[in-house]
Parts: sequence; structure tokens; C-alpha cells
Amino acid sequence: MNPTRFHWKGLEQVAAQVLSRAGVRGEDAQLVARSLVHADLRGVESHGLSRLPIYVQRIEAGLIELTQPPALVVRQGATALIDGKNQLGVVVGVAALDEAKQLARQHGIGLAGVRHSNHFGSCSYYAEQAVDEGLILLVLSNAPASMAPTGGIVPFFGTNPIAIGIPAGEQPPFLLDMATSVAARGKIALAAKKGSAIPEDWAIDADGLPTHDPTKALLGSLLPIGGAKGYGLAMFIDIVCGLLTGAAVGPGVKSLYDNWQDPQDIGHVFLCIDVQRFLPLDAFRQSMDAYIRQVKNVPTAPGVAEILIPGEIEQRIMTARKQDGIPFPQTVVEELAKLCSAYGIDLAQAVCTA
Amino acid sequence: MNPTRFHWKGLEQVAAQVLSRAGVRGEDAQLVARSLVHADLRGVESHGLSRLPIYVQRIEAGLIELTQPPALVVRQGATALIDGKNQLGVVVGVAALDEAKQLARQHGIGLAGVRHSNHFGSCSYYAEQAVDEGLILLVLSNAPASMAPTGGIVPFFGTNPIAIGIPAGEQPPFLLDMATSVAARGKIALAAKKGSAIPEDWAIDADGLPTHDPTKALLGSLLPIGGAKGYGLAMFIDIVCGLLTGAAVGPGVKSLYDNWQDPQDIGHVFLCIDVQRFLPLDAFRQSMDAYIRQVKNVPTAPGVAEILIPGEIEQRIMTARKQDGIPFPQTVVEELAKLCSAYGIDLAQAVCTA
Ligand SMILES: NC(=O)c1ccc[n+]([C@@H]2O[C@H](COP(=O)([O-])OP(=O)(O)OC[C@H]3O[C@@H](n4cnc5c(N)ncnc54)[C@H](O)[C@@H]3O)[C@@H](O)[C@H]2O)c1
Ligand SMILES: NC(=O)c1ccc[n+]([C@@H]2O[C@H](COP(=O)([O-])OP(=O)(O)OC[C@H]3O[C@@H](n4cnc5c(N)ncnc54)[C@H](O)[C@@H]3O)[C@@H](O)[C@H]2O)c1
Repeated sequence: MNPTRFHWKGLEQVAAQVLSRAGVRGEDAQLVARSLVHADLRGVESHGLSRLPIYVQRIEAGLIELTQPPALVVRQGATALIDGKNQLGVVVGVAALDEAKQLARQHGIGLAGVRHSNHFGSCSYYAEQAVDEGLILLVLSNAPASMAPTGGIVPFFGTNPIAIGIPAGEQPPFLLDMATSVAARGKIALAAKKGSAIPEDWAIDADGLPTHDPTKALLGSLLPIGGAKGYGLAMFIDIVCGLLTGAAVGPGVKSLYDNWQDPQDIGHVFLCIDVQRFLPLDAFRQSMDAYIRQVKNVPTAPGVAEILIPGEIEQRIMTARKQDGIPFPQTVVEELAKLCSAYGIDLAQAVCTA
Repeated sequence: MNPTRFHWKGLEQVAAQVLSRAGVRGEDAQLVARSLVHADLRGVESHGLSRLPIYVQRIEAGLIELTQPPALVVRQGATALIDGKNQLGVVVGVAALDEAKQLARQHGIGLAGVRHSNHFGSCSYYAEQAVDEGLILLVLSNAPASMAPTGGIVPFFGTNPIAIGIPAGEQPPFLLDMATSVAARGKIALAAKKGSAIPEDWAIDADGLPTHDPTKALLGSLLPIGGAKGYGLAMFIDIVCGLLTGAAVGPGVKSLYDNWQDPQDIGHVFLCIDVQRFLPLDAFRQSMDAYIRQVKNVPTAPGVAEILIPGEIEQRIMTARKQDGIPFPQTVVEELAKLCSAYGIDLAQAVCTA
């Protein structure tokens, strides 16, 4: 028997209702709900509704600002600085995205830096929106410490993600969305639960030694992609998201789960490019289509059915899940059910009917 | 006995003289000479004077434009498009850097896209110049095919490099300068010469299988950092450097060494950010210094003497080589000597005395 599947529109409603009752203003509740369900639709479960309980807990603990909206600190030329005012990360992220898009339309390129924000979910949520409007978007964010610099043994950087969206025509858009660590911490936590070994390049233990043991890895430090190269990328992201904007950096970024006194003070950067300053959008879309076809035509290795474009896996999952519904692990269903019942919301309204 | 060491200023003169006699205009010859010696000073020998012979050979073969300078195609708002006119890559790169810096000073951020360029050397050459003026710079370039997309077995992308420079105060600046492949092709060629094995994550053979054999690797394909993540980064770089600017992309980028009929048609992107739009430069320098000290203070793994900042290794080598001179492998010295004598230039003028 198939596990219960949920309809994405129903889930958006449920999540928005919960957030509303927790005190989030109408439109903001919609935004956050949409971002979380978007991640579940794309199969990025680590950034989907499994995060709703912790978001709500931080709201209940008074750690999130719900009334004051994010504010523009300064806009000058093609750059802007936004103070997130400790609002929910998605609310801040969408405000910064809008600012970056507007600047790009006006100046060809626009950069919106953000300080005093919170966990803003999966970066692809923003990249996809820009792509839908024919814009190129780069999104960067810093995150709580989990990764040591190369040679170090104590976490300093977050898994600082980078996402890049580039529109295409008939082909799926280019949608790279990645942590700068080899593997997400969640994957290691999962291996620990299952008692299975992890590849040697995922993490080091607390003594800085390579480990296959997920339990030791969780006490140690994640490894960046490409050794010192990924360390450099994570540090760059931390500097522009944090030092440049006035957000926290390094271990100063507060944990979503373990710190119950302080705002997270996360920083983001949204960099938007208007394709049309370089060539007509239609011509660009056509050359993207031809280019993507060329990449997909590269001969494949034994056992590889097909070459995929970044974001294509997730887009296929999204198509399937919009049709067949979204499955969740039992633990997530239980957590959501508990949360919903605490707020008097009926989770069952989102269950797919045959 | 120490091998011969060369003085960097002497080398700059020698290289500029050779380039001048080969037909490169006065100031352009200086620029290219400076870029190559800069790489040697930093210990990035793959992008130093070892490239001078091939640059000159392409000039001699009439494959490089020497008289028409790079031209501004369009400048609008904070973006510009430059036609490299098939000039030497460094000449084009410096023109694009100047444009990006100017745009950033005016608009807070500036993007200069470049088409119809050639191999422009080590990216750090440009990043360092921006950093010296208190600017943040991102440099991207595409390059001839040597890396397959994930799952593929035929090279499609170049080792498409990315460099990022960020100014600091008393601490060395942040200067990340990296290929998106795990290892440079040159390192594999060297292993092949020596007959030594290569790590399994460097390359695949022509059948798409992992290999420790450098000879098989050279017939196969380089691997990107972080698996599909590095493939995504290389593809992003190819798209913005090539499709957006109108330069060649993928296997359409011509080899520096193997194609003797066509211009390389490489594309670059220079993205410059003016720190002062966000905070006073001095305050930023101070927070960078404190931040770098914090990173360097992270406890180290067994056997690791010190945590290094991206670019720090190279800066130390530069300091040492400015003082003690630059050593070259015997083959490079021989090639340079041959080139110099063909142009009636005395390489010995650059040898360190005492
Ligand atoms: N907000 C935060 O603080 C934060 C921090 C870290 C990560 N994240 C999010 O976590 C999510 C997951 O990150 P991740 O690094 O684990 O992602 P991942 O490793 O699953 O995928 C990374 C990228 O590679 C692409 N990809 C994977 N396999 C591919 C293949 N075979 N061919 C072509 N492309 C392929 C995917 O489409 C994706 O764009 C992202 O949405 C990211 O934004 C958020
Ligand atoms: N023009 C082109 O087409 C092209 C193509 C590819 C590469 N390149 C150039 O090749 C050169 C070499 O690239 P690479 O990827 O082989 O460089 P690399 O692997 O030697 O170094 C990459 C980066 O990591 C840093 N680094 C290395 N070890 C470190 C450590 N332990 N701690 C902190 N930082 C550390 C370095 O300072 C550098 O910034 C670069 O200058 C690049 O621009 C040019």
C-alpha cells in the first residue's frame, strides 16, 4: 500500500493557516507556506514542511519579528541594502528578490544585500521566480556553522548555499541549487539513524580525522566540495552575505535549532542580471535550448541513462508530485499532525483523494 | 646547487621585448608580460612564462589580432559588453576589468561581459588589481573542452575558472582563484611524464570509468569539484561567459594548442562591487582583518601547522620569489631561451646575480 500522499495546494493552505494562527500576517503566511511546499514538490524534503514545526516554535518563543516588515536601508545606483528586521527568512528573501529584480530591470544588473534575516529555505524558490520572468539570478546565504576551514577541525562556516537560475525556452531552465558542503548535514543524521556508513569525503570527526561513522561525523565537521576550493567558496559567501551587509558571520550566525535566545542574524545576497541588456530574450532562450540539447547529447558512461541539466531532477519530481501528490516520511506526518492539531487545523484536508 | 633563478622585473622586460618584436604594441606587450610573470611570482607556473611560447606561436601563425583594440559594443546602466576583437586575452581582460571597475564606482556594481577573446592567463591577475583599489571582483572565463557533464564521457566544458578578490586591511586579501575541475590538466600531464598514479577523483578514462592512470585520464575527461555541483558551476560559467556575451561555448571554444585555424573565441565575465556602497572601506577592511584572524584561529587537525586564507599560499610564494628570484623547470628555461634567441633577446639579463 502506498503511504499517504498530500496535495500541494492543500498543503499550502494548511501551512498558511498554521502560520496565520501563530501570528504571521496574511500574505507573509502564504509566502512561507509556498516556499516550504515548493521544496517538497521539488523533492528537497530537508527544506520543505519538515521545517514548519521549527519555524513555528521560534515564532512561539518570540524569536521572530512578525509585524515590522523588512526595511530598505539604502538604495543607490544598482545596489540596495535591506534590513530583514528579524522577519521570517522567506518574507525577507522575497522582499530582497523584488528589489534585485527591479534594480536589474533598471540598470541591467542589481545587487540586494540583506542583514538580520532568518533561515530562508531552499534557494531555488527565489531563483525559479526570477527565471520565470526571464532574468538570471544568483542567490547566496550564510548559515549556522557546520564546516571547518581546510585544515581546521571546528565548524566555522555554514553549508552556505549558492543557487543560480538561468531561463531557457522549451528546455527546462538551468537551476543549480547547492550547499557548498559535499553532503547536507541531514544526510549524515539520516545515516546515523539507520546505522549506515557514510563516504569518507563527507565529514571529519572531532579530531579532524576522516570518518565513515555518521555519529562521529555529527560531532565533527562537514567537508566542503573540492577541498580548499569549497572552503573558499563558503568563505566568500559568508563575507558578502555577512561582513558586507552587516549580518552575523562564521560561528556568529545562530542555530535555527539550538539557540533559543537570539535572532539568527543571517545574511543573504541576491544578484540579478537582465539578459536583455546583452541580447533579445527570445534569442537567448533559443540559444539556451540549443546549448542544453548539446549538453544532453554528450555520450554517457556505462549505466547512465541520460545526462541531466542542473535542476532537471527536481523539476521532474515536481511534475510528478503535482500530479500524484507528495509523500512524507511517517515522522514528518506525525510532527505536522501534532502541529496542526495544536492550532486547530485539519491536516486531513490536504490528503490526496484517490 | 640551486637551479638558476630569475628576477621578476628582468623577466617582465624580457617577455615584453619578445612580445614587442613579435608585433605586440608597446603597452600591450607590457600587460601580457606582467600577467605571465605575476603567475610565476605566485607559484602558478601553469599560467606563467611557460605560456609565452604558445602565445607567440599563435601570433606568428596570424591567429591573434594585434592592432585593433578591444571595442565597447554597448554600455548601458551598470552593464557593458566588450568585443575582444581576438586580441591577446590579457589585453582584453584588462580592458574589461577597467570597464567593470568604472561601472562599479558609478553604480555600486558593474558587469562587463566579453566575447571574442583569447586565453587570458591566471584570473588572480585581475582580482588582485581590483583588490588593490578596494573593490571586490569576480572573474569568470570559459575555456577549451576538457570536462564532461556528470554522467557523460566526452569533454564538453573547460576547467572554467572562477576567481574572487576581496580587500582586507593588514591581513592578506581574500584571493580565491580556482579551476572548477578537481585538478588542472597540467597536473595529470605531469603525472603521466613521471609515470605516477593519480587520485581516483581527478579524471575518468575514455569509457567513463574512474582511473588512477594519468595516460588514460588524458584520453578521457577531467572531473569537476563536488560531482554534479562542479559540473553545474562550470556550465553556469560557460553560459554567462559564452551564450550571454556571444562568445563560443562548450566544444566550440578553440584549443590554445591544437587548433591552428581559428581564433579561440573565449568569453569572460568581470563583476565588480564597490564595498563603499555598503559600509566605509576602512570599516570593511577592519572587519575583514578581524574575520580572517578568527578563521586562522580555528583549531587545526593533526599535522596541520596553520590555517590559510585563499590566496595566502600564493602571496607567500610571491614575497619569497620577489626576494630570492623565480626558479623554472629546465624544460621551461630551454623553451624560453630558444624563443628569446629567435627574437634576438638576451634571457641572461633576467638571471639573478649573487
Ligand atoms: N537556507 C540554507 O541555509 C541552506 C543551506 C544549505 C542548503 N540549502 C538548500 O538545501 C538544498 C539541497 O542542497 P544540496 O547541496 O544537498 O543539493 P543536491 O546535492 O541534491 O543538488 C545540488 C544541485 O545539483 C544538481 N544535480 C544533482 N545531481 C545531478 C545530476 N546527476 N545531473 C545534473 N544535476 C544534478 C541538482 O539539480 C541541484 O541543482 C538546496 O535547495 C539548498 O538551497 C539551504
Ligand atoms: N584562463 C583559463 O582558461 C584558466 C582555466 C583554468 C584555470 N586557470 C588558472 O589556473 C590557476 C590554478 O587553478 P587551480 O584550481 O589549479 O588552483 P589551486 O587548486 O592551486 O588553488 C585554488 C585556490 O585554493 C586556494 N588554496 C589551495 N590550498 C589551500 C589551503 N590549504 N588553504 C587555503 N586556500 C587554499 C588557493 O589559494 C587558490 O585560491 C588559477 O590561477 C586559475 O585562474 C585558468
